[in-house]
Amino acid sequence: MVTQRFRNTEDPGLDELYGDMADADLQPLWLQKGLLPRMPNGLSPHIWRWKTLRALAERSGDLVGIDRGGDRRVLALAHPDLRGEPFATHTLWGAIQYLNAGELAPAHRHSPAALRFVLEGTGVWTLVDGDPVLMEPGDLVLTPSYNWHEHHNPGNTPMIWFDGLDLPLVRNLDAVFFEEGPDEPTDYAQVRTSRSEHRFGMAGMQPVGHVRAVQHPASGRHSPLLTYRWAATDAALTSMLDAGAAGWAAARYVDPATGGDIMPTLRSEMHRVLAGHRTPTTRTVGGGLWVVHSGSGASVIGGVRFPWAAGDVFVVPSWAAVDHEATENADLFLLSDGPMVEAAGLGRTETLPEHQHVTGTVAG
Amino acid sequence: MVTQRFRNTEDPGLDELYGDMADADLQPLWLQKGLLPRMPNGLSPHIWRWKTLRALAERSGDLVGIDRGGDRRVLALAHPDLRGEPFATHTLWGAIQYLNAGELAPAHRHSPAALRFVLEGTGVWTLVDGDPVLMEPGDLVLTPSYNWHEHHNPGNTPMIWFDGLDLPLVRNLDAVFFEEGPDEPTDYAQVRTSRSEHRFGMAGMQPVGHVRAVQHPASGRHSPLLTYRWAATDAALTSMLDAGAAGWAAARYVDPATGGDIMPTLRSEMHRVLAGHRTPTTRTVGGGLWVVHSGSGASVIGGVRFPWAAGDVFVVPSWAAVDHEATENADLFLLSDGPMVEAAGLGRTETLPEHQHVTGTVAG
Amino acid sequence: MVTQRFRNTEDPGLDELYGDMADADLQPLWLQKGLLPRMPNGLSPHIWRWKTLRALAERSGDLVGIDRGGDRRVLALAHPDLRGEPFATHTLWGAIQYLNAGELAPAHRHSPAALRFVLEGTGVWTLVDGDPVLMEPGDLVLTPSYNWHEHHNPGNTPMIWFDGLDLPLVRNLDAVFFEEGPDEPTDYAQVRTSRSEHRFGMAGMQPVGHVRAVQHPASGRHSPLLTYRWAATDAALTSMLDAGAAGWAAARYVDPATGGDIMPTLRSEMHRVLAGHRTPTTRTVGGGLWVVHSGSGASVIGGVRFPWAAGDVFVVPSWAAVDHEATENADLFLLSDGPMVEAAGLGRTETLPEHQHVTGTVAG
Amino acid sequence: MVTQRFRNTEDPGLDELYGDMADADLQPLWLQKGLLPRMPNGLSPHIWRWKTLRALAERSGDLVGIDRGGDRRVLALAHPDLRGEPFATHTLWGAIQYLNAGELAPAHRHSPAALRFVLEGTGVWTLVDGDPVLMEPGDLVLTPSYNWHEHHNPGNTPMIWFDGLDLPLVRNLDAVFFEEGPDEPTDYAQVRTSRSEHRFGMAGMQPVGHVRAVQHPASGRHSPLLTYRWAATDAALTSMLDAGAAGWAAARYVDPATGGDIMPTLRSEMHRVLAGHRTPTTRTVGGGLWVVHSGSGASVIGGVRFPWAAGDVFVVPSWAAVDHEATENADLFLLSDGPMVEAAGLGRTETLPEHQHVTGTVAG
Repeated sequence: MVTQRFRNTEDPGLDELYGDMADADLQPLWLQKGLLPRMPNGLSPHIWRWKTLRALAERSGDLVGIDRGGDRRVLALAHPDLRGEPFATHTLWGAIQYLNAGELAPAHRHSPAALRFVLEGTGVWTLVDGDPVLMEPGDLVLTPSYNWHEHHNPGNTPMIWFDGLDLPLVRNLDAVFFEEGPDEPTDYAQVRTSRSEHRFGMAGMQPVGHVRAVQHPASGRHSPLLTYRWAATDAALTSMLDAGAAGWAAARYVDPATGGDIMPTLRSEMHRVLAGHRTPTTRTVGGGLWVVHSGSGASVIGGVRFPWAAGDVFVVPSWAAVDHEATENADLFLLSDGPMVEAAGLGRTETLPEHQHVTGTVAG
Repeated sequence: MVTQRFRNTEDPGLDELYGDMADADLQPLWLQKGLLPRMPNGLSPHIWRWKTLRALAERSGDLVGIDRGGDRRVLALAHPDLRGEPFATHTLWGAIQYLNAGELAPAHRHSPAALRFVLEGTGVWTLVDGDPVLMEPGDLVLTPSYNWHEHHNPGNTPMIWFDGLDLPLVRNLDAVFFEEGPDEPTDYAQVRTSRSEHRFGMAGMQPVGHVRAVQHPASGRHSPLLTYRWAATDAALTSMLDAGAAGWAAARYVDPATGGDIMPTLRSEMHRVLAGHRTPTTRTVGGGLWVVHSGSGASVIGGVRFPWAAGDVFVVPSWAAVDHEATENADLFLLSDGPMVEAAGLGRTETLPEHQHVTGTVAG
Repeated sequence: MVTQRFRNTEDPGLDELYGDMADADLQPLWLQKGLLPRMPNGLSPHIWRWKTLRALAERSGDLVGIDRGGDRRVLALAHPDLRGEPFATHTLWGAIQYLNAGELAPAHRHSPAALRFVLEGTGVWTLVDGDPVLMEPGDLVLTPSYNWHEHHNPGNTPMIWFDGLDLPLVRNLDAVFFEEGPDEPTDYAQVRTSRSEHRFGMAGMQPVGHVRAVQHPASGRHSPLLTYRWAATDAALTSMLDAGAAGWAAARYVDPATGGDIMPTLRSEMHRVLAGHRTPTTRTVGGGLWVVHSGSGASVIGGVRFPWAAGDVFVVPSWAAVDHEATENADLFLLSDGPMVEAAGLGRTETLPEHQHVTGTVAG
Repeated sequence: MVTQRFRNTEDPGLDELYGDMADADLQPLWLQKGLLPRMPNGLSPHIWRWKTLRALAERSGDLVGIDRGGDRRVLALAHPDLRGEPFATHTLWGAIQYLNAGELAPAHRHSPAALRFVLEGTGVWTLVDGDPVLMEPGDLVLTPSYNWHEHHNPGNTPMIWFDGLDLPLVRNLDAVFFEEGPDEPTDYAQVRTSRSEHRFGMAGMQPVGHVRAVQHPASGRHSPLLTYRWAATDAALTSMLDAGAAGWAAARYVDPATGGDIMPTLRSEMHRVLAGHRTPTTRTVGGGLWVVHSGSGASVIGGVRFPWAAGDVFVVPSWAAVDHEATENADLFLLSDGPMVEAAGLGRTETLPEHQHVTGTVAG
């Protein structure tokens, strides 16, 4: 989109007008195309394969150290529709982080909010504002806006996890703040259970007199529970299926102090589809990034079939029709910008009356 | 307080005025005493002993059946300050309910909200709007406003539980509605886990797309989790103490979908005091009813020491100073009208700088 | 309701049981009658006549001074169903206040919230936490919970207004606090417009950066606008009728900073009925106190017709069917406990399909 | 930002790694510069001059008609930092709209929310979901998300107004929906007062039983008052200044039903600075677009002085220090994305201890 394109009509008066507008940093609306599409069309679906992600992360682990300034060994998912920007969607950052045995990713904090979903390995502690959180496969770990965080691997094996952030969204709001912490590891205990779990890890029970600790004057409300363990997530889905769901169930990770989303800008859910089942087709305003935690199957997105297996990551664009079908029992982790779409008053989800007609399949 | 008392001053003009006022259903404010006390003074502390409660409940179980109309075998705590009304405080109903083996307390529903805290026995199911909830010692079970409920004892032993209701408060609002259900037991499965637990029993996880089922046009928001199991409550308190609390800890039962109180009018908490510890002294606007779940010790209320043991129930009046001291490790269940005091904008809790001076002790 | 009444059945075993219960401050639920009525039935409708109210207020003005301790020359509406308590309903205090020329009703504050609706006269200032509010007929003036307030009549004529408070409700919560201020009048300007009006008197406009001033640690949220002028109320109703309402319209007084009720416990509305029109019949959970501001007509309450004229005050009990019919254009001011009924989750209003059958008329 | 730039290091292994990453749609975080700045730096301040805006709008009015498809004669402010996109900031659309006598801008609706602030002329009606709103200078008119709207000029003179939308923000959320209405003008009355004003135009008064009419399943909450008249805005500011503000005052336009912002994504305020006064210097997270309604003066933004006069429009970027100084009494209309920054938990405003040092002046 460039201002100049509006010149060279066949009317000299108009040409002069459009030229003068361009000189004045103005653009005529009536010549804009695509500004107001009939429905969202900003992005294609896209998939990244675990085999590739893992291999490149491991090669990076061999070749690239973690230095102050870089701070993290992170491979960002760069959606090809986004003109070279290292973003997975217009609003979401997705990435693979790789931490070798013995390494430290040093402390920093920033206004964008982040979460980690553990893909492989164990034995890393993420220190969130002083609270040491052990990371194991299937765990979700929050490092909310403005919380100091560092990752520390005192073990013998590398770890790989998925990073999700609201960075593109916060950049669009021009609200990014960043601050480095100390270079040296903060001293902390290698405990199994974080303080946040001790206080908020039980369903329906809260410490009397809980007052939210504020890390920063601009720190918004976020969940006081900093990690959601795989065992609990698994049990919740099993329980929901026991209660009668037909072949699939979905649980949202929520702030136990409010019942709302875990952080003001990000929503996370885990969807379980049993082998042989296919979910109804839905479409939702707002974009989603799906990480296959386990199992195999395929999703149909906008009529195109995307087969997937554990570790794959794919984008479901805003308002694209989507359903998931499992070959083996499958668990799919979802990260979305739902809370902000709803804050804008624009949230909407529809279930379509029937499954999509499949017009093609992307190679697995 | 009677209208006539304002006659017979020594001034005939005033006498006539006050008489004419009384005839017109008016009262002069300036002769009222005690309408606006400097601070709450409406009630004394009071204690009921488990030994007595249990014995009278058992005798009632032998002598009195459960008939339609009576509906329940319930012994209401009648605070002696309340002029014969069967209420524990101005706003709270407390009672002991006794259900023999094989008995059914038939279905009804009402606008006052109720909860049950199980004291002795096991094997009763409370059916809450069709969801069968098994009751075991230490469990909290909700039967919120306008939810159909019945109690069914298919086992071999009697059960006893504490009933807490907002009935006096709802009467004061002149908002009591009541409806009988069918006389016959509703057919239901003797399942270990209610549907509400299947859906809301995991910390920080919620079914995606949860929509509150509404039982009645006037049914307010309440917790979708209908029971809080003792094992979870115990674990929460243990975990909070592990996290560093010094000798005592307190957990509030909350609506997992909002983080707020379990029902719009009632608050519940479990307070654990370890042997040899004494809590700080606090005072709170609003009245509380305490049920000793286990252990022994004493509470100082307004300077008077009330020793207690398991099963005892006592009133801590609004704004009375209170602290608890444990001889053996003790768990104290609290029922209060806190949500309504706060809705009125009048909530306040203070911690006093030191423990109260004890001026007397009530016989144990 | 007295504990003893449960003795003297024809069964000696039961007699002994009931006696032992009474000794133990317990009451058997199964002998209680009327605890759980099918629907609210706590109060009859009742009316007080302006002619009587005004005459007795004036006589009080002649015979009784305003002393510290009494603080106010107030005639409380004492509903005959309430056993001598000086309350208009279970939750609402209604009264007539009379202030002679030159008098001061000295400063105090209390946890119960109050409002004034001006009936006759002009020239009194109510000082609300230091903000001088001029009072004129038809104005509503708020003195919210814990706000210091005093009334000062520097003019030449007496004034009469209606006082509405949540005192019975706050007493039931055992949450009454009271504090005297200085005996002497606080010095203040006799200004036409209070500071609160300067800041919040314009529809849809708020001061940027408004932070609520807190008078007291337990002071709940209330409207920052302390007076609602008759001219604005009249204009709002006129405008609503112009917009197409058929013969009647009703406006709620709201907190301009939230759109909610003016105070946490009290709701106020002004209902206008044009001559010859009759409103639909409705019933609402929660009690209402109606003050006739102007005009004449009659209300049918629970099938009984209550004719009224300006200055009359009447009670519409909880869930009683009610409609209003105007002979002359009439404005009816309503005070209710609606916010607390709704906080308890029990709010409900129904419009009945047709007008009530009138079974009697109360003498006018 | 392009993926390829990471090749050609001096290490062939790294070159190969970065090449393989690019092929796999991945980017190494550690080579990114500027992704996480220490504080917002996404935009420069910028100003558009009324003289230019007006002249180009008028020329457009002479040369360009309003056709279906174009729908509006609108000149979009295209910030030169935004690479040719027709947006004033990352989140805000600002534009000048010009409607000749007798013209119709036909009906459409869209998910982005819009407002109009009238700059010149009178006699246009904007029909908002069927409610005809007359437009006059200084009026603010809302056409919230998904509300049908069309502009109709039955008068004899052209009109010019400022259009503000959240379009860039909604595009970033990939949530734009658009729908055309009928080509022909909807028949409507040329009334002075819209229905929304009849119902919500009085401070502190609301229709009893107001239920929000919903235009669309995805329509968020917005103000039920669709226009804020200049006379009321002017009176509010005058009143605030009378109440003691020292040389400047600011009023926020609010939803009278909630006290919150007028629409979920957009905030509007009017700031008045009296001649000879300079406001304190503040900085705020989130971007602002300022329209000079009247008067003259200058704003210092990030140390640079921008003189302005009536009709000028300027951008104050996120977190840039800003203060305003008036030569003549001045009224400045502000449009910002504050509600969304706050929804993201990132809202923050600071007042700096002293005025900025001025390092330069932009030509007036």
